[in-house]
Amino acid sequence: MLRLYDFHDSGNGYKVRLLLGQLGIPYEYVEVDILTGKSRTPEFLEKNINGRIPVLELEDGRRLAESNAILFYLADGTPFLPQERWARSQVMQWMFFEQYSHEPNIATSRFWLRHTEFDSHRRRRYAEKIKDGIAALQVMEKHLSSSLFFVADRYSIADIALYAYTHVADEGGFDLSPFGAIRAWLDRVRNQPGHKPITAA
Amino acid sequence: MLRLYDFHDSGNGYKVRLLLGQLGIPYEYVEVDILTGKSRTPEFLEKNINGRIPVLELEDGRRLAESNAILFYLADGTPFLPQERWARSQVMQWMFFEQYSHEPNIATSRFWLRHTEFDSHRRRRYAEKIKDGIAALQVMEKHLSSSLFFVADRYSIADIALYAYTHVADEGGFDLSPFGAIRAWLDRVRNQPGHKPITAA
Repeated sequence: MLRLYDFHDSGNGYKVRLLLGQLGIPYEYVEVDILTGKSRTPEFLEKNINGRIPVLELEDGRRLAESNAILFYLADGTPFLPQERWARSQVMQWMFFEQYSHEPNIATSRFWLRHTEFDSHRRRRYAEKIKDGIAALQVMEKHLSSSLFFVADRYSIADIALYAYTHVADEGGFDLSPFGAIRAWLDRVRNQPGHKPITAA
Repeated sequence: MLRLYDFHDSGNGYKVRLLLGQLGIPYEYVEVDILTGKSRTPEFLEKNINGRIPVLELEDGRRLAESNAILFYLADGTPFLPQERWARSQVMQWMFFEQYSHEPNIATSRFWLRHTEFDSHRRRRYAEKIKDGIAALQVMEKHLSSSLFFVADRYSIADIALYAYTHVADEGGFDLSPFGAIRAWLDRVRNQPGHKPITAA
C-alpha cells in the first residue's frame, strides 16, 4: 500500500490526499508534526533530504517529494492529467505558478497567522506577502473569467494544486469577495465527484 | 519559428535558451527589459498575465509561461526528459525543488546584488535568503555525492533547471568552494554536447 507522510493542516498534503481519494487509491497516512520539528529529524531527512512534507512512499520503498510532483506521478495516465502535450504543458505552467507566485504568499501567510508570533520584521514580511498574494489571485481571476477550469475547461491536477490554498486563503488574511470568478471556480471544484474537505481524515 | 520573450541576464530564460540550443531548434529572440518594467506593460501582460519572462510563443500564437513548464514542453519526447513514469516524476520533483527552495533564494540574491539598492530591510531579507540558499545547496550536494546527474544518472531538464542559477550562485554571494559534488556536477553539465554559457546570444 502507498504511504503518505503528511501534516494534517498542510494544503500541500491536502492536494495529494484529495487526488488519492478521487482516484480511489487506498493509502497509509503517517502524521509528521512539522510544528515540533518532526520533518527535520535525522530519521525524516532519510525520507526527504529537503525536510518537507508531503512525501509519497511506494511499496518498494522508493520515495517522491514535492506535492506537485506527487500529483504528476499519481495522475499520469488518468483523466486528472491530460495526455495531449500542449494541455499537459499548461498544467505544468499553472503548477509552477502555484509553487512560485501563489504558495509562498498565500500558504505562508496562513501558516504565519495560525502558527507563529509576529515581530516588526514579520509584520512587514506579511504585508509583502499579502500584496504578492493578491497579485497571484488577480492572475487567477483574470484566467478564470473566461475558463471553467485552469486547463482545457476540464478539472485536472492544476485545479487541485491551486484549490488547496486558495479555498483557505481567508485563513491567511485574504478577502476573496472581490474575486467572483475564483469563487465560482472554487464551487466547481468542490462539486467534483469524490471531493473531500481539507479537514477530512 | 518559435519566439522566446526573455531577458538576457535571466537564469530562467537561460534554461530555455540552453535547451533550445541543445535540441537544435532555431528561435526568434525578443528581449524584454525587466529592469525598466517592460514585462509589466499592458502589451506584455497580454502575452503573460503574470508579467514574467520567459514566455515561449508558438507559430500559431499560443503561449506558454514558467521556465520549467517550457522545458517540459520542449523536452517531451526527447532524451532530455525520461519517458519512464518514475524517472519523469523525479525530474518534476527536482524542478519543483528548484522553483520553491532554490530560485527564490539563489536567483533573487543575485538579482538584488546586481540590480537593486539595499536598505536595512533588504539586508535582513538578503541574510535570510543566503541561509535558505545554502540549505538548498546542501540538499543538492548530498544528492550529487552519490549521483552523476539529478535523475537516473543522465543529463535531463532537471539538471538544466538547477544549473541555471547554481553556476552563477557566486554572483548572489554564495561560496561554492565547500560544495565539491556540486562543482563536479557543474563541470559535467558544462561538458554536455551543445552547451553554451549564460552570456551567449
